[in-house]
Amino acid sequence: MIEVSIESFFSENIKSALKSNPPGEWMTKVPAGCIRLNSGYPSPTHVPVMPLKTAVAKLFEEEQDLPLHYLGSPRITKLKEQIQKRLAERGIHVSEEELLITSGACQAIDLIARILIDDKTIVAIETPTYMEALEIFQNYTKSFISIPVDKYGFDTNRLEEVLAERKSKGLTLPRLLYTIPTFQNPTGTTLTAERRQHLLELAAKYNFLILEDDAYGELSFNKCPIPLKALDREDRVLHVGSLSKVVAPGLRIGWAAGASELITALAWFKKDLGHPFSHATTATFLEITDFEKRLKTLRDAYQEKCTVLISSLEQYLSELVSWYVPEGGYFVWVKIPGVDTAQLLTQALVEGVAFVPGKYFFLNQKDGTEFIRLSFSYADEKEIVEGIKKLGKAVKSILV
Amino acid sequence: MIEVSIESFFSENIKSALKSNPPGEWMTKVPAGCIRLNSGYPSPTHVPVMPLKTAVAKLFEEEQDLPLHYLGSPRITKLKEQIQKRLAERGIHVSEEELLITSGACQAIDLIARILIDDKTIVAIETPTYMEALEIFQNYTKSFISIPVDKYGFDTNRLEEVLAERKSKGLTLPRLLYTIPTFQNPTGTTLTAERRQHLLELAAKYNFLILEDDAYGELSFNKCPIPLKALDREDRVLHVGSLSKVVAPGLRIGWAAGASELITALAWFKKDLGHPFSHATTATFLEITDFEKRLKTLRDAYQEKCTVLISSLEQYLSELVSWYVPEGGYFVWVKIPGVDTAQLLTQALVEGVAFVPGKYFFLNQKDGTEFIRLSFSYADEKEIVEGIKKLGKAVKSILV
Repeated sequence: MIEVSIESFFSENIKSALKSNPPGEWMTKVPAGCIRLNSGYPSPTHVPVMPLKTAVAKLFEEEQDLPLHYLGSPRITKLKEQIQKRLAERGIHVSEEELLITSGACQAIDLIARILIDDKTIVAIETPTYMEALEIFQNYTKSFISIPVDKYGFDTNRLEEVLAERKSKGLTLPRLLYTIPTFQNPTGTTLTAERRQHLLELAAKYNFLILEDDAYGELSFNKCPIPLKALDREDRVLHVGSLSKVVAPGLRIGWAAGASELITALAWFKKDLGHPFSHATTATFLEITDFEKRLKTLRDAYQEKCTVLISSLEQYLSELVSWYVPEGGYFVWVKIPGVDTAQLLTQALVEGVAFVPGKYFFLNQKDGTEFIRLSFSYADEKEIVEGIKKLGKAVKSILV
Repeated sequence: MIEVSIESFFSENIKSALKSNPPGEWMTKVPAGCIRLNSGYPSPTHVPVMPLKTAVAKLFEEEQDLPLHYLGSPRITKLKEQIQKRLAERGIHVSEEELLITSGACQAIDLIARILIDDKTIVAIETPTYMEALEIFQNYTKSFISIPVDKYGFDTNRLEEVLAERKSKGLTLPRLLYTIPTFQNPTGTTLTAERRQHLLELAAKYNFLILEDDAYGELSFNKCPIPLKALDREDRVLHVGSLSKVVAPGLRIGWAAGASELITALAWFKKDLGHPFSHATTATFLEITDFEKRLKTLRDAYQEKCTVLISSLEQYLSELVSWYVPEGGYFVWVKIPGVDTAQLLTQALVEGVAFVPGKYFFLNQKDGTEFIRLSFSYADEKEIVEGIKKLGKAVKSILV
């Protein structure tokens, strides 16, 4: 077969994006039997297999072929109402025109990036941050402002300094700031109420939009922080959320909530024609589920597993590492001074435990070599204890 | 609430795309009780409700939580193999790296457009063509070459003339040609074997890629024409297909098959993280289904309904209209000389029948005012007869 050079047909901006941000894999292949402290998956125990089976049966009983066409299932509309209702309970009041259901939060982030970002746009990000979002933004621009995260979320004072300096020098200001303010991925930290207010003031003063990724917001161990979108008086916040962490990622239910002009544009550029079967199944599942009760079960279970993980760190690694204590979500961020954690992973996999090396969460990967992200969502309590013990062995074998 | 002008934050190319191709609706709201000869939906009789219910039960029985995570279900891989096998039966042999599962054919078309088209790119299209594809391309470029469709598919001689003329004048040549060669939407026509060869020769001579949309290719009443991709010796054809017309659109299973470099790029820019539950459900459905038998049932049913539609046209409208006789697919394309079919639709809805006015399938909508697309897929035989009778009444009332 004579083959043409297919890449010669790619458009210039795509060639450029692929060159600076080439397709790659951050997920390490985890050998069977390894304890998965790397995984951002929900606990298998709490993935609602039986209720979903019941939901599908009920759906077909009541709607026959309707959920299998492009449109027609009344539950496509119903799912939107159910999500509006859940958002309202957290102080986010959006109309039908201000909400778009997407294939997970990632599709929402990608669509927002497509509408707002071109190669002249500066995006402000917190560092470290969600690797998938980083990848998405890097497909559109090479210009970032990076603001460090500490135990209170990202440092809004540092953001203000950077913005003031850029303004005084006549430099371009960011159009968009991306943040996971609550139970952040990967650090588990939560932006304080003061910083939330400060951020909104800065957005008004320096005229940028805020993309709030709230994938973990409902998974609080104690009190749920108020989402940025609920504090937003200027419609500057684009709120992105998901049922992936509280129901199941495989259903791919996420959303974007924000100004109707933006939502209209997102919907217009979203050319997958929706996901009727998945939407209608999820709507039926939500109908037959006591969601508050479900959330309480999840919060209790994850809090318990988080406690186990942290006591295990204290027991097996306390002099060697430091960490932030999360108040919700899935993750604990650990610093291991003097250790290259990519190298550590090789040793840890031999011991039988997996984690995500910190470098993947940094724009400049060199800044993340001493960190790891541990997840307490997927593994059970016994595995967590065992996993941290194995991690301790691996760290000690490296430090010797 | 003080609102910012959210549109001022949109990137320049998006502002420009929204200006020239504003969000709109081509789907007319069809009043309840109206006969739907407008609908590109499969026959409700043949949408596999019970087998899918069985498939979901079997899936959860065998895999528990696996299909509800991001990855992990062995059936995600299996679906790809099943589609590779079906493609191979039609002469299209692609490796795992040359195939990407997408959310319907539309997402595949959108991703291909995103990789290949920018505002400097010229796209060659057949006219009339699939409205959703037109919308997608118009989000990326304003430059089109439009080649008319006759009863043998689009006119490749005309394409050659246009290309030769552009070349002689030193004008930019198209990078991509989009075609639905088999049972075209909206005309129902099929590109002849001679024209298929001619097209491939032109692609080599004038160095462009071909996007083959094969959504209807398996729904032949007699013989299945050989797909362009099966004739492709240079890897110039990007083949896009779907289970929407042969299983159910609500599952959103489509694909792109082509050169691995392109498929890698499509996968990298597809940021929805896949659809595990839908993929695993579909794989299980395919396991428990005799697909050849299913196809035979569908082909027979649609052929019968097409025959009924055409006899009804002969009976109720023969002196007033003309049409192409399709050899497969879902659609009959009808010309009604002297009638503005958008105006006719208003009258037809009063009579109780819906169709799609032809203008939506044209880049220049004025060229399509005398045409309508009738579908024989969704309505049953009795409704088809009744619908055409009502259409006859509406046409006559307009022509009086």
